[in-house]
Amino acid sequence: MTINITAKEMNEVLTTLFSKYGFSSEKAKLLAHVHTENTLHGVNSHGINRVPFFIEQLLRGLVRKDAEAEKEEGFGSIERWDGNLGSGVLNAIKCTKRAIGMAKENGMGLVALRNTNHWMRAGYYGWMAAEQNCIGMMFTNTEPNMPAWGGKESRLGNNPLVIAIPRKKGHIVLDMAMTQFSFGKINEYQLSGAQLPYDGGFDAHGNLTKNPEDILKTKSGLPIGYWKGSALSIVLDMLATLLSGGRSTYKLGLEEHEYGVSQIFMCIDPTTFHQSNIQEQLLEEIITYTKDITPTRPDGKTYYPGEKSLSNKIENEKNGMQVSEEIWNRVINLLNN
Amino acid sequence: MTINITAKEMNEVLTTLFSKYGFSSEKAKLLAHVHTENTLHGVNSHGINRVPFFIEQLLRGLVRKDAEAEKEEGFGSIERWDGNLGSGVLNAIKCTKRAIGMAKENGMGLVALRNTNHWMRAGYYGWMAAEQNCIGMMFTNTEPNMPAWGGKESRLGNNPLVIAIPRKKGHIVLDMAMTQFSFGKINEYQLSGAQLPYDGGFDAHGNLTKNPEDILKTKSGLPIGYWKGSALSIVLDMLATLLSGGRSTYKLGLEEHEYGVSQIFMCIDPTTFHQSNIQEQLLEEIITYTKDITPTRPDGKTYYPGEKSLSNKIENEKNGMQVSEEIWNRVINLLNN
Repeated sequence: MTINITAKEMNEVLTTLFSKYGFSSEKAKLLAHVHTENTLHGVNSHGINRVPFFIEQLLRGLVRKDAEAEKEEGFGSIERWDGNLGSGVLNAIKCTKRAIGMAKENGMGLVALRNTNHWMRAGYYGWMAAEQNCIGMMFTNTEPNMPAWGGKESRLGNNPLVIAIPRKKGHIVLDMAMTQFSFGKINEYQLSGAQLPYDGGFDAHGNLTKNPEDILKTKSGLPIGYWKGSALSIVLDMLATLLSGGRSTYKLGLEEHEYGVSQIFMCIDPTTFHQSNIQEQLLEEIITYTKDITPTRPDGKTYYPGEKSLSNKIENEKNGMQVSEEIWNRVINLLNN
Repeated sequence: MTINITAKEMNEVLTTLFSKYGFSSEKAKLLAHVHTENTLHGVNSHGINRVPFFIEQLLRGLVRKDAEAEKEEGFGSIERWDGNLGSGVLNAIKCTKRAIGMAKENGMGLVALRNTNHWMRAGYYGWMAAEQNCIGMMFTNTEPNMPAWGGKESRLGNNPLVIAIPRKKGHIVLDMAMTQFSFGKINEYQLSGAQLPYDGGFDAHGNLTKNPEDILKTKSGLPIGYWKGSALSIVLDMLATLLSGGRSTYKLGLEEHEYGVSQIFMCIDPTTFHQSNIQEQLLEEIITYTKDITPTRPDGKTYYPGEKSLSNKIENEKNGMQVSEEIWNRVINLLNN
């Protein structure tokens, strides 16, 4: 069962909620904005749905409400920050801002952040960079949830990766985890009693399967491109760990709960170059070329990365967001108890 | 039919060949070294096998033997270079060196290169960065050879991506194209009369298939992770095109032959940070964790990215390289005619 909630209502409820749980007025507003924005973009799983779990992590002491990311050291265009186990969202916003600032000053900047927490929807930080006319590339490591290719047990994180490119008519934002389907999506298929359209993970015998229930039991998602996504996940974890001096997926897997992850925020300012005025034209050419096709299904079409996310936002701003009634009630209960 | 060739012999033959076709002694040596090194690493398709085609491109005037990459403009940590349609290998080496130099000076550096040519094996430049203790990330765009997800015609390049991380016991080097199988690999399956182990492309009806012959006919490879690799390919093309001001996959597809591609070379120096001395230990932890598994096949194991490439090199340095007799004869004929 879903109910319809407007962005204004969600924002107000969440601002009050985060204030109640001890965040300053400014931080509560920002957190509420991000969770609402993520839901507006159609990513309920990392918007409103994640709020009760975030409060649990706060109450467990795994997220520290008074902590902030701080710069530890830097050399030219790269810096290392410590998240001090603060809110993953607030830390990620601070580090994205810093990477944007470095890009404006010096063409490019990279912030490696350790000891931070779940940043919710990765794409948020890509949109943020693009809004400032910057290219953004961000990724995070996670607890292990997919096997390295050739092995049975989960040893790799699905390590979401964002690549954003600014565009006046709608930013290009790739936001993808290394698993073929997110566990949120697999859950949805299970709830609706449907099989996945493609293999999405492994069953208890280590065989590839389209059955959502089997995958939810093993917690073994399929890496995109089999051995290729497995390898990409390994190198993203290595980069985040080495550059931040933080915890790897291996270390995250030693704990009961996922906290203290490692992340990378990189921004590039492309406007510095000659001919940056034809950037829009070059992007349009590429987009038009990929759309000018015979669709594989009669009613099909191709999308550029970020296109659906933007149309979700426009739609949801107009008509309100469809939110799980159960989740919304849990949020309201947290507010009233 | 294959014959056994030593690295020394290949290097000498190729140095003479490239000199004969007008490269200076120094450049001929470097080109011979790269093609030999690529073959030593087991990537014949972008080593010795590619030599006759490279000479053809030279004779067509698509590769200019006297041209060199030149810096056009720069701002802080990012620079734009023009390859002047010179050798893709020589241009890529020059730009990798420059990105390494920028990383040493300033933590990080990015070179965007336009009007260049096929760089042969992408991994070469990753190994090169890692040898200088730098993290390397490089990618190139290509002519269209896979469909955007949801469409039938090829509109995306397989845009190889390299991510390299230095490690004393053997560098970590991810070297992957955005297609599930390279066309070289699909060719091998066809020649041996075997089906691919997983879907690897589309047949004439737009259906996924394991049949190598069908895929070679349509020239429609499968993007890794279906819609995800499709999206990743789009953003890599956009980044290479925008930052270099060069040609996109769309533009490359307008020509009969692929030339004048756009590439990105990015290097990061991780040794600048505190605790960089424990880098090796962090990498070992991650590698050990991914190898400490129950294999999916009784004789199976997991590999870190770059592991097989390194063991190929060690093996081939010891025992010589297995090279297609037909290809070798073509190279010798080019030398003697």
